[in-house]
Amino acid sequence: MIQEHKSLPAIILVQPQLGENIGAAARAMYNFGLDDLRLVAPRDGWPNDRAGATAAAAAQVIDTARVVATTREAVTDLTHIYALTARPRDMVKDVQTPEIAVSEAKTHIQAGQKVGFLFGPERSGLENADIALANKIVTVPVNAVCPSINLAQCVLLVAYEWARQHTPDLPVAKQPTYATSEDVHKLVDFMMAELEARNFFHPPEKKPSMQANFRNALTRLPLTEKDLQTMWGALRVLLGKFQR
Amino acid sequence: MIQEHKSLPAIILVQPQLGENIGAAARAMYNFGLDDLRLVAPRDGWPNDRAGATAAAAAQVIDTARVVATTREAVTDLTHIYALTARPRDMVKDVQTPEIAVSEAKTHIQAGQKVGFLFGPERSGLENADIALANKIVTVPVNAVCPSINLAQCVLLVAYEWARQHTPDLPVAKQPTYATSEDVHKLVDFMMAELEARNFFHPPEKKPSMQANFRNALTRLPLTEKDLQTMWGALRVLLGKFQR
Repeated sequence: MIQEHKSLPAIILVQPQLGENIGAAARAMYNFGLDDLRLVAPRDGWPNDRAGATAAAAAQVIDTARVVATTREAVTDLTHIYALTARPRDMVKDVQTPEIAVSEAKTHIQAGQKVGFLFGPERSGLENADIALANKIVTVPVNAVCPSINLAQCVLLVAYEWARQHTPDLPVAKQPTYATSEDVHKLVDFMMAELEARNFFHPPEKKPSMQANFRNALTRLPLTEKDLQTMWGALRVLLGKFQR
Repeated sequence: MIQEHKSLPAIILVQPQLGENIGAAARAMYNFGLDDLRLVAPRDGWPNDRAGATAAAAAQVIDTARVVATTREAVTDLTHIYALTARPRDMVKDVQTPEIAVSEAKTHIQAGQKVGFLFGPERSGLENADIALANKIVTVPVNAVCPSINLAQCVLLVAYEWARQHTPDLPVAKQPTYATSEDVHKLVDFMMAELEARNFFHPPEKKPSMQANFRNALTRLPLTEKDLQTMWGALRVLLGKFQR
């Protein structure tokens, strides 16, 4: 069951070694909605049970992965190819961050082009011959004293960037019933009257700023109707006006 | 050797289970320059050899990690606390993406505040009592049909966001010696003259657009001086004007 992935970038793993890493990469892709996985000569053959097991909820990405013998075959239909590589190469090619590369890829895809990201084997990374097939190099800007990120993490960052640049907002969470301003201020008024009766706002010249500070403290956070009920109950108990 | 981490957010792992995951989280932090790790009651005690082994180049993050018994102790010095949780909670608290939360955290830190990100145990995630210590909830916006990302990956995304929002540009790579426009056009002129001599630009009414297209094709990509030398050599060989 080969799917059409017209509007999503392909993830191409060149000679991946461990089935677990292929599965983890598939899951990282699918976490952020990517599902076009292509494998170039996976070391341990194909299918690979460990890949499927690690992929878990992303099993369909594994099931529909295209497996080919050479990197060139994996990219035949693509128009814009990005090679992920950490090592500086003696090659004249633009080097971009994942952020910039994904932004550019998005523009290409919106224009109907087909984009893919190439990732090398776990140990050695992409060879120069594979990088030569790519239009651009993508380098994750890591801490020089701790530069090693693994294959699935690298795929995760590209997939995350893709989603981040496509879903700027979270779906709106279920909203609580917030209290109206008037309901909040009725509580504040009540508290301030009780405090006033106990000569809290002293000395008199500081009273206005003390009152303002007090009201500010309670209006700083949005309060829900339930919060207000709780606070009214607590106040009444504290003031001895209500017996449990 | 406790370090001061004044200007970096703390990463707090609450009851982490596997040493490997603690080590992987430390490495993910340090990949992007974070080094203030705090552990709340790690299940298998502390120190943990597997954490150090997995951390690899981030061993110093493990070595300087603060280990405490309760989440509350882990956050005593912090002013702004973000809880990473995937599950919707019946709690009234702002829910932010990592992108927004890190952007806000950056502002707080620049203002001299201290920020931390709370992560729950691998299996169960943060408990409500821990989330109640946080000011905001952070949820990674994942694909609903494949929402599971592991502890170290979640830390990786927060650390990546931190670095992404702090290092907008890669260090400038060693630049090749690009050819000047004039050198490129000398080659184009030469090729066009040779083509003209062979009656390539035909019919005459199409000659201007054919010439423009031809020049465009060669100026689309930046060419280096070395590229030009190669092309001059190849052309001369093709034209029989130069013998190897």
